[in-house]
Amino acid sequence: MQDELLGIGVVGYGYWGPNLVRNFSNSGVAQVVMVSDLDPAKLATSRRFHPAVATTSNFRDLLEDRRISAVAIATPVHTHYELALAALRANKHVLVEKPLAQTAEQVIHLIDEAERRNLTLMVDHTFLYTPAVQKIRQLIQDDALGDIYYYNSTRASLGLFQRDVNVIWDLAVHDISIIQHILDEEPVAVSATGACHVAGTPENMAHLALFFQSSCVAHVSVNWLSPVKVRQTFVGGSRKMIVYDDLEPTEKIKVYDKGITVDGTTESAHQLRIGYRAGDMWAPHLAATEALQTEAEHFVDCVRNGTSPVSSGRSGLRVVEILEAASRSITAQGKPVRLRQRHRVREAV
Amino acid sequence: MQDELLGIGVVGYGYWGPNLVRNFSNSGVAQVVMVSDLDPAKLATSRRFHPAVATTSNFRDLLEDRRISAVAIATPVHTHYELALAALRANKHVLVEKPLAQTAEQVIHLIDEAERRNLTLMVDHTFLYTPAVQKIRQLIQDDALGDIYYYNSTRASLGLFQRDVNVIWDLAVHDISIIQHILDEEPVAVSATGACHVAGTPENMAHLALFFQSSCVAHVSVNWLSPVKVRQTFVGGSRKMIVYDDLEPTEKIKVYDKGITVDGTTESAHQLRIGYRAGDMWAPHLAATEALQTEAEHFVDCVRNGTSPVSSGRSGLRVVEILEAASRSITAQGKPVRLRQRHRVREAV
Amino acid sequence: MQDELLGIGVVGYGYWGPNLVRNFSNSGVAQVVMVSDLDPAKLATSRRFHPAVATTSNFRDLLEDRRISAVAIATPVHTHYELALAALRANKHVLVEKPLAQTAEQVIHLIDEAERRNLTLMVDHTFLYTPAVQKIRQLIQDDALGDIYYYNSTRASLGLFQRDVNVIWDLAVHDISIIQHILDEEPVAVSATGACHVAGTPENMAHLALFFQSSCVAHVSVNWLSPVKVRQTFVGGSRKMIVYDDLEPTEKIKVYDKGITVDGTTESAHQLRIGYRAGDMWAPHLAATEALQTEAEHFVDCVRNGTSPVSSGRSGLRVVEILEAASRSITAQGKPVRLRQRHRVREAV
Amino acid sequence: MQDELLGIGVVGYGYWGPNLVRNFSNSGVAQVVMVSDLDPAKLATSRRFHPAVATTSNFRDLLEDRRISAVAIATPVHTHYELALAALRANKHVLVEKPLAQTAEQVIHLIDEAERRNLTLMVDHTFLYTPAVQKIRQLIQDDALGDIYYYNSTRASLGLFQRDVNVIWDLAVHDISIIQHILDEEPVAVSATGACHVAGTPENMAHLALFFQSSCVAHVSVNWLSPVKVRQTFVGGSRKMIVYDDLEPTEKIKVYDKGITVDGTTESAHQLRIGYRAGDMWAPHLAATEALQTEAEHFVDCVRNGTSPVSSGRSGLRVVEILEAASRSITAQGKPVRLRQRHRVREAV
Repeated sequence: MQDELLGIGVVGYGYWGPNLVRNFSNSGVAQVVMVSDLDPAKLATSRRFHPAVATTSNFRDLLEDRRISAVAIATPVHTHYELALAALRANKHVLVEKPLAQTAEQVIHLIDEAERRNLTLMVDHTFLYTPAVQKIRQLIQDDALGDIYYYNSTRASLGLFQRDVNVIWDLAVHDISIIQHILDEEPVAVSATGACHVAGTPENMAHLALFFQSSCVAHVSVNWLSPVKVRQTFVGGSRKMIVYDDLEPTEKIKVYDKGITVDGTTESAHQLRIGYRAGDMWAPHLAATEALQTEAEHFVDCVRNGTSPVSSGRSGLRVVEILEAASRSITAQGKPVRLRQRHRVREAV
Repeated sequence: MQDELLGIGVVGYGYWGPNLVRNFSNSGVAQVVMVSDLDPAKLATSRRFHPAVATTSNFRDLLEDRRISAVAIATPVHTHYELALAALRANKHVLVEKPLAQTAEQVIHLIDEAERRNLTLMVDHTFLYTPAVQKIRQLIQDDALGDIYYYNSTRASLGLFQRDVNVIWDLAVHDISIIQHILDEEPVAVSATGACHVAGTPENMAHLALFFQSSCVAHVSVNWLSPVKVRQTFVGGSRKMIVYDDLEPTEKIKVYDKGITVDGTTESAHQLRIGYRAGDMWAPHLAATEALQTEAEHFVDCVRNGTSPVSSGRSGLRVVEILEAASRSITAQGKPVRLRQRHRVREAV
Repeated sequence: MQDELLGIGVVGYGYWGPNLVRNFSNSGVAQVVMVSDLDPAKLATSRRFHPAVATTSNFRDLLEDRRISAVAIATPVHTHYELALAALRANKHVLVEKPLAQTAEQVIHLIDEAERRNLTLMVDHTFLYTPAVQKIRQLIQDDALGDIYYYNSTRASLGLFQRDVNVIWDLAVHDISIIQHILDEEPVAVSATGACHVAGTPENMAHLALFFQSSCVAHVSVNWLSPVKVRQTFVGGSRKMIVYDDLEPTEKIKVYDKGITVDGTTESAHQLRIGYRAGDMWAPHLAATEALQTEAEHFVDCVRNGTSPVSSGRSGLRVVEILEAASRSITAQGKPVRLRQRHRVREAV
Repeated sequence: MQDELLGIGVVGYGYWGPNLVRNFSNSGVAQVVMVSDLDPAKLATSRRFHPAVATTSNFRDLLEDRRISAVAIATPVHTHYELALAALRANKHVLVEKPLAQTAEQVIHLIDEAERRNLTLMVDHTFLYTPAVQKIRQLIQDDALGDIYYYNSTRASLGLFQRDVNVIWDLAVHDISIIQHILDEEPVAVSATGACHVAGTPENMAHLALFFQSSCVAHVSVNWLSPVKVRQTFVGGSRKMIVYDDLEPTEKIKVYDKGITVDGTTESAHQLRIGYRAGDMWAPHLAATEALQTEAEHFVDCVRNGTSPVSSGRSGLRVVEILEAASRSITAQGKPVRLRQRHRVREAV
């Protein structure tokens, strides 16, 4: 019945968990029943802000609670696989914070388990639910940009050093999910480099390039050790180009009617004449919707209707495959690593 | 005699040549005697702004003019080697626009020729003469930044597509010369990727990573096809970090007292505790001096005193070696290319 | 007893009330007992976010509740006086949203009532509790700026049109309270102009100038009808100058070592030589403390210890006197209005 | 004959004079014949950059030179009247740097003299010839903005303290000329305040408000003692609003589809419902033309065809009348000063 609220259990009440609790609570379609965390102080915080939500230090309590239909997991990455698998086996729908798991193999197991049980498996690629990314996707689909030449992104700040994943798995994961979502084409190879400035920790700075069959390239620069915060993406097309700055309070997307015109044929390359075109700039109005709100409602909707989420387990698999390939390339100082072609993945399942 | 003006001939009156003529004319230590260019329209422009400067369409006229002691070359890259070699053989001191030549082998010939004749060979790495780069270099030498973790730079604009060199030779060349100038350490390998969006032209977009023996890395992103102009460099150190934005009219350099503190020993990595430090920001006042003015005076000074320029032929050689290696890496989609160690170069000469 | 939480009643749960409830709840020194509002929907929202806080549509319930020692008022301006007076008469300490009341006469009554009963009367001039304003005040007190030449501020946005007060009482009130707090000197006159672009509403755009005995001037520009949000203040001194941009996420205050130097005596004015000085810029690190948190704790502290608040009723009186004078000047298209001198006010009480 | 170049004499080779010489020289329709200045060093500079232009320290030489048809005056304001009058009496067309003269009376004499002799009298209100101001004017004329609510401008920098005029005559003069040019309506009164921070010099900081018959207001804030340069203008309309930032390298004008909607009649003011509208932003592409180039060509064109310049003596008169009124208001601390209605001025001449 549509009117009943979907019962949610949230695992992990650290940085992201409180956002999940708040957004599911405000969604009007779900109710957070219980929160679990190993840290009693965090459970106390949860009780202070959400007195009606039960708390437990034992994750199993969520699985056994009949009121809970779905589990949202916001714990360190290395625990995602086991927690998600346990939740699926307890017949709970599952939403997992990005990245879905530490290996593609783990993700495939999760997908299999969810499909076998007809459960929703969704990964929390939040940016796909932002008005900004949705607008960029629409502009590309409407062919407003023309051929896509590049996606060039920088995510940097004095960020929290993670213990179990490097900066690519923490930050570049956003761009990889966005690239998959907005572009028609799949990358065929990746070259990545990285650096570690604190002995005993994963790479805190990295760059990665994704190659496509076409002349399109994607490049992502990520850094946990930047003095200022940067969240800036350039998308270049043959007709128009976009600058997307996620830190801008309102004008996050600027569309430039700029580019080059090529006069001449490729046969006579030395006679090519390149013209430069500079036109208006336009910043479309974006709704002020919080992405996680949209995402929480989408998750409940997919659970209810059995439809596949925008950020499905399968899309999360592709992201993890690219992250794995990038990590291998980092070890080899940028040596390119081929990516499995997607049709094979599709066939495999 | 110090009071006499050094006679200068300028080859090429396209984009950069007029700047050379203007700055040598205003230097008070040199006099531009003649300008050569193959395009009569450009020579006419020169005559309009500088009626006292002779013009010629025959480069040989400069070499034969006894009043000319030094030749400044501002022509397309593929002509640098032959023009510079001819000038040196005519016993002229030579200043060449960056990059010095198209191959390291050519550069070595030019260095040999200049050394044999006791002539000054200088490459126009203009950024080394900016107050901003000089200030960054001083801060590093004073150990204000601590250990250098990274140099991360972006140069992008809707820029002039060059015919004879790709975007790395046009734009990344600036960063490579700066990195060499401000860092104590030599890169040992390079990984680079690039893309070409106009068939029949060189790469118009590229990224390159330079590896060092230490954990320091340098990364440079360059793009001729960007809707907005970007000239931004981050330099991260263990003590302080710099953001250098060359498009800022006054506060080009911002020094952040920010970073991490590591508590614990590397033996017990899982007990590492990382602290985050956020302090003041400081933008040192920079002189408004035009870099090319400083550089023109430095060239004249080196010619007069026989001293080695900051941007000597030898430093230009290292830059070209890195550019060559980067181009090879681009062809191999990021596969790293080892760099010859500098001490070998030093011994060789 | 220090350990007991101070019982708080909050009147009005519109825009500002929720912030008061949240900050008193998080203060650790107070407990919100009850919220009153005339709108049942707002009370429902309060119950959702704060299930432990009682709600009522009858303000009298707060006055009669023995657990409530202090009342915080966040209602439309025209109700401040009556509500605050009733609260004081019920022997509650009172915190009133800015501006304290609609007339100076009303404010004097409130001050008298509070003093007679030894109760704390505080006005919610939130900006006085921001790290940014506290830092500016400290810099001025340390004489880092030298003689203060001017305070020049702009507050604009597409803002909520108020019904009962014009834009000066809504926005310029912030600057007037800041000016009073950071400057040693009292303004002696005010000239203001304003405009109303929607018939039947108060002025939505205004400018006001405050004159001092010295050559210092203050100017405030406020606008409810601006396409972009602006919160920018310039403070100019003989030694240093500050740019304070409240919209900057981190570097809100920039201190410029810039100015003029005057060479010569005032007797020979025509021989005055003015020099221009451009030095470093410095952005002091500011704590990320939320101002209202600091303010809530300060209020509780003043109630407990009987000390006078930074934003006392008396300081609120001066602000209202200036607002009244500014409104009179607006009616007369900028004709200056003299201000009562403060010492007289001080003597009067 | 169109093909002949108009002979120009330039008086004053300080800050602005070199720009006049350069732009007339490059115009293709004029030729600078002679430059006069009292300072031999400045004449030497002129000869260095423009060897073909004669120099003199005697202004009379220009008047007597038969090759000179028009004189451009770029000297301190207090000399404008006498120099312009002498030039007109020598039957030269005249272009005068802003403001035209120190008093409206002087300007009227110049207009009379020019009209009697059928000579062109033009004032150098450069901003009227910028692509940005021309675009704003066009948007207003096309009714894209709807009813104009306000013009709100700030011009500040660490600027050159003038000796003979205060900051209003130096900086606000630009806005007053722009307001006249883009708005359909004439201001009816002015209120201004100012401050002087260096004894013996004119006001270095000022604010002025212009009142109109409609609800439109204009406000201008000018400051010679600002740590950072600001050149920002907001133009608010009932339909759209403009932010014009002259320091932006390319996107100088941003047009916001934002505003309020008013629901209800003015009779029932307490039932007014105001809605807030936030739509797209748009930055029209502007030509990169240098304003002074456009202006120089316009001057030559007016001289040749006897047409009235955009920045005619008469428009310069109105500007000076407003400046005079503003100065009177400053003396009276903001007391409004009525302006003569323009139709009277028109009749008078």
